[in-house]
Amino acid sequence: MQPFNIHVLGCGSALPTRRHLPSCQVVDLRGKLLMLDCGEGAQLSWRRTGLNWQNLQHILITHTHGDHVFGLPGLISTMGLLGRKAPLFVYAPEALHPFLECILRDFCRDLDYEVHFKAVDTQAHFLLFEDRSMEVWTLPLSHRVPCCGYLIKEKAGLPHIRREMIDFYNIPLWAINKIKAGADWELDDGTIVPHEHLTSPADRIRSYAYCSDTMPTSMLAEWLAGVDLLYHEATYADTESMLAEKYGHSTARQAALTAQRAGVKKLLLGHFSSRYDDESVLLREACEVFPDTVVAYEGMRISP
Amino acid sequence: MQPFNIHVLGCGSALPTRRHLPSCQVVDLRGKLLMLDCGEGAQLSWRRTGLNWQNLQHILITHTHGDHVFGLPGLISTMGLLGRKAPLFVYAPEALHPFLECILRDFCRDLDYEVHFKAVDTQAHFLLFEDRSMEVWTLPLSHRVPCCGYLIKEKAGLPHIRREMIDFYNIPLWAINKIKAGADWELDDGTIVPHEHLTSPADRIRSYAYCSDTMPTSMLAEWLAGVDLLYHEATYADTESMLAEKYGHSTARQAALTAQRAGVKKLLLGHFSSRYDDESVLLREACEVFPDTVVAYEGMRISP
Repeated sequence: MQPFNIHVLGCGSALPTRRHLPSCQVVDLRGKLLMLDCGEGAQLSWRRTGLNWQNLQHILITHTHGDHVFGLPGLISTMGLLGRKAPLFVYAPEALHPFLECILRDFCRDLDYEVHFKAVDTQAHFLLFEDRSMEVWTLPLSHRVPCCGYLIKEKAGLPHIRREMIDFYNIPLWAINKIKAGADWELDDGTIVPHEHLTSPADRIRSYAYCSDTMPTSMLAEWLAGVDLLYHEATYADTESMLAEKYGHSTARQAALTAQRAGVKKLLLGHFSSRYDDESVLLREACEVFPDTVVAYEGMRISP
Repeated sequence: MQPFNIHVLGCGSALPTRRHLPSCQVVDLRGKLLMLDCGEGAQLSWRRTGLNWQNLQHILITHTHGDHVFGLPGLISTMGLLGRKAPLFVYAPEALHPFLECILRDFCRDLDYEVHFKAVDTQAHFLLFEDRSMEVWTLPLSHRVPCCGYLIKEKAGLPHIRREMIDFYNIPLWAINKIKAGADWELDDGTIVPHEHLTSPADRIRSYAYCSDTMPTSMLAEWLAGVDLLYHEATYADTESMLAEKYGHSTARQAALTAQRAGVKKLLLGHFSSRYDDESVLLREACEVFPDTVVAYEGMRISP
């Protein structure tokens, strides 16, 4: 299967700790890289992933709280110093625009690449962009400021060629892509070999949803229906449910309820409050509702 | 002696590496904390020092390159979340002002403390501020943008009481501070005991200078005369001296020459280019000129 990996660079919340960095993930889908949020230290953690900066095309920001964006100045500057030429697209709520403009004006005048800001309507669920490999959809969230998550859906790939059949019929290389695309093969005696005999089915289509930060919101489970892997914030345990409501966050149990309602395959918890020395209580409370739950950690790599 | 410690939080240059973070130091002088530059990750590294955020009074920025200031947004926000009330003073070239205003306007509206920006004239050597413990002087540097270093001079403390003399003459507690301040003591029979007999001399006065980033500049050695500890940037080795000149930096040897001319007691090298896997070549070249040289590292604690 082609790579579809999520690299967790940071999964803490507003107050960084010795264990957790602020929010940031990198999604590697068939070699194309998307960054989800960009907390302070993103460029420092990036180096441990071994990923190539040049392949980062899009940065998707959920909302304009510092722990989700304060890594942007350093990341943008460093890619400039490293000789980046390819344009970079930053999707975020409009409120990020002045900060980005300030960075570009005061610190990045010599940048050899373009940074394009795209304001995201955080109220609507819509297709933000697509290319040959993926669709990226917005997921309106409910937080103290305009906020939206992102749903990344892989596009269907081509079927796989069955090498033994190609050898058997002595089919030339030039015909391979046509057969993958659905063309049948005609033998010298005029016999037609249906393309289904020459191929095995394409890989299953995978999807990943990133929901940080949010309190429970009614439509979310519908938009997340059938998602393979859901990252959902789980800032608090049950005992802090009042704080979760006050600050527009979720408990681990609430995250699990959303995962259950949506029928996702796996739940990944993150955005942990600094009050927890470890996340065992959050994992336990989520698993009571949705057993296929794991907790994020810095350096984690996980696939949908 | 009262504490006068320099904590190195970051001593790399523009490109962070796996070994080095961008420029940042914290000076602890008698429990008062000053930050020197504030590269990305400053608030994350701070936690390892065990120092109290509340005691940070001043942040001194040398210049407005990202690797010296991109830690400010996170640091200022986090201190707000932690309930800071005391005002914070940020000294920097005027060019930092718009960035700071943007941070405060877009991310720190709920801050419970005041952030005062003080524009620094980077062309003049002058007393920036003083309190009971220290004087802070500017050190004009020569870089690609307006830039100045900072010289922190401890103020003379009071002499130490000689406990055995106090016991011998049975001097009451209320008289101690007066004797320290220079008052003699009169015995019951009218004999005067000179205060010099009751005290030992005050601790020696220490000084620390922070010079990052700069190419060699003529007046610097004069202003640094007799400094106990000099942090001087040493971005490059001899073989990269052309790059040092081009980018307004120093080689390790040039740093050592300044230390030698100024007659400082000890030289601390930092701001290392990412091209060096370790700093042995920089240390060797500096030591050829000025033997009492050490290299900085993240987590280092050193005193003048």
